[in-house]
Amino acid sequence: MSIITFVGAGQMASALAFPATENGHEVRLVGTHLDRDIINSAELTGFHPTLKRQLPKEGLKYYQLEDVELALDGTNAVLCGVSSFGVDWFCDQILPLIPDTVPVLSVTKGMIDQEDGTMITYPDYFISKLPSGKKLSINAIGGPCTSYELADKDHSAVAFCGTDMEILRRFKKLFATDYYHISLSTDVVGVECAVALKNAYALGVSLAVGLALGPDGTGSEHYNSQAALFGQSVKEMTQLLTLVGGGDENIIYGAGDLYVTIFGGRTRKIGTLLGRGWSFEKAMTELEGVTLESIVIATRTARCVRRLAERGVVKLKDFPLLIHVDDIINNGASVAIPWAAFETEKY
Amino acid sequence: MSIITFVGAGQMASALAFPATENGHEVRLVGTHLDRDIINSAELTGFHPTLKRQLPKEGLKYYQLEDVELALDGTNAVLCGVSSFGVDWFCDQILPLIPDTVPVLSVTKGMIDQEDGTMITYPDYFISKLPSGKKLSINAIGGPCTSYELADKDHSAVAFCGTDMEILRRFKKLFATDYYHISLSTDVVGVECAVALKNAYALGVSLAVGLALGPDGTGSEHYNSQAALFGQSVKEMTQLLTLVGGGDENIIYGAGDLYVTIFGGRTRKIGTLLGRGWSFEKAMTELEGVTLESIVIATRTARCVRRLAERGVVKLKDFPLLIHVDDIINNGASVAIPWAAFETEKY
Repeated sequence: MSIITFVGAGQMASALAFPATENGHEVRLVGTHLDRDIINSAELTGFHPTLKRQLPKEGLKYYQLEDVELALDGTNAVLCGVSSFGVDWFCDQILPLIPDTVPVLSVTKGMIDQEDGTMITYPDYFISKLPSGKKLSINAIGGPCTSYELADKDHSAVAFCGTDMEILRRFKKLFATDYYHISLSTDVVGVECAVALKNAYALGVSLAVGLALGPDGTGSEHYNSQAALFGQSVKEMTQLLTLVGGGDENIIYGAGDLYVTIFGGRTRKIGTLLGRGWSFEKAMTELEGVTLESIVIATRTARCVRRLAERGVVKLKDFPLLIHVDDIINNGASVAIPWAAFETEKY
Repeated sequence: MSIITFVGAGQMASALAFPATENGHEVRLVGTHLDRDIINSAELTGFHPTLKRQLPKEGLKYYQLEDVELALDGTNAVLCGVSSFGVDWFCDQILPLIPDTVPVLSVTKGMIDQEDGTMITYPDYFISKLPSGKKLSINAIGGPCTSYELADKDHSAVAFCGTDMEILRRFKKLFATDYYHISLSTDVVGVECAVALKNAYALGVSLAVGLALGPDGTGSEHYNSQAALFGQSVKEMTQLLTLVGGGDENIIYGAGDLYVTIFGGRTRKIGTLLGRGWSFEKAMTELEGVTLESIVIATRTARCVRRLAERGVVKLKDFPLLIHVDDIINNGASVAIPWAAFETEKY
């Protein structure tokens, strides 16, 4: 039996409590300042109000943020369950509290662009934020997995990535069940880039959903146009993978994750609204209060590609869908899929 | 204005009459022996009974098979619109009638396995069947495009492939419209392999739909498991692309086509029924009379991979999803997704 401290009690972290407790481990679920109501509810009734599920009855202990040091006492591993918006907080407030011998696994997917146009993974970003002299093993989860279905014990396949295969194997042992299938990879940049990019491109593919539904939303969904944008997404994502130095075989995580992201949730919703002709501002108002990683990732990735294009490293014309999505989000452009820019002649 | 003779009046060929006639060309639609009722109906009322659409009023002429030579007289290009089951008939009966100067574009997607375990594309197969001394330019269409949506002038992006870029550009000029977007590629084996394989793998992904619906069909659809099978499909398809010598960038056609195939039609239906626990025989009975290219392609590809594995060229364990689909179709296996076989350790 191991003790795993989850910092952040959002949907994904809380869903991971199912396989971890099922494997007989003790999970200490610590809410951030945003999760106070979740912890209160779960402690009182076992019900997680945003995951909308009863959490496991056995093996789960609840902590408010002020008790995080208690929750970290004697722990064997830490799960970082904050969204990309909470990463800096986690780095500043939590990382210094974790003993060097305790490895960290992060559910935060994504990459951050730097001034020079390069992007780094969250594990690398975490490491760059460690207090001087501190060493921690930071690992991350990538791949297609919605929290609801994980909590319902549906089959999900993900990748755990990090630099040390032995530590990855330990994490796999903590979480692997007959429904939660885990591959391991030391190609951190490849896995993280692939799964981060799918957010941006899921928004791109969803534009076709909105275009088919039409301005009044009464049209019927079409698939040829979605498939075309899906193919273009896979193409641009593969190029971006190469650009960041990740193995392009990681497109399997990106493509699977893109597939699942298009079906559900907030990214599809905003892409659909934009495709129906709503302005970005109006669409964002409709989704008020909702964390939109797709917007963050698309903006960051496009900013990175534009900088690299200025330096002559890449050509903007090789990323027409990404640039169009960025123009819609950040430059007030209307949706006008650049179909001709997708056409190629290949010898 | 060019004359284009379409041999085969099925749904996809007939849908291509929309962009071709819209571009001002004369389309001569020739029914095979299977299309007699279609030609009769279209000639009488303009209605295509299986495409379920009114065909274009202008520029379209109808021919029964016995008038094929008349339809070929003075034509500038031929579209081969038969399914994979009609290819041998087309090679034997129609190819000898086509003048060497008239290029052929085939809608038949797929590859055929040969005795030695290698697979060849339909264009290469067509060429191998030409009468001695005869030379024809055989080209093919790949990529995600359902006939209904093409007929409805929704945006679709496809690839035309062949060995001569100039001829491909001529075909593009005949068919390209502001909704039918055409890339060109001389990597015939890459394009054709990618789009053929998606049939087999769409059946594989659809198993997850059936598993979620459950034996009585009342469960709700889940996406994590579909996404996992989607990712595994992209991985195996990319490996198979490399195996046949096609550029792995063609996975963009395969992935886009896989995406659209999972949503609709017969392949999803049989995959779903199999996933719900139906035997292959019972599922096939339910789909009586329906052409199932997915079954043909999965069987051929698996046979090819098994032969290559016997010769030590590939390892069966690198294609667990394909082999499982083949075992279900051809060896009486029940659905039991080999999840553990999908897990990898990547350094």
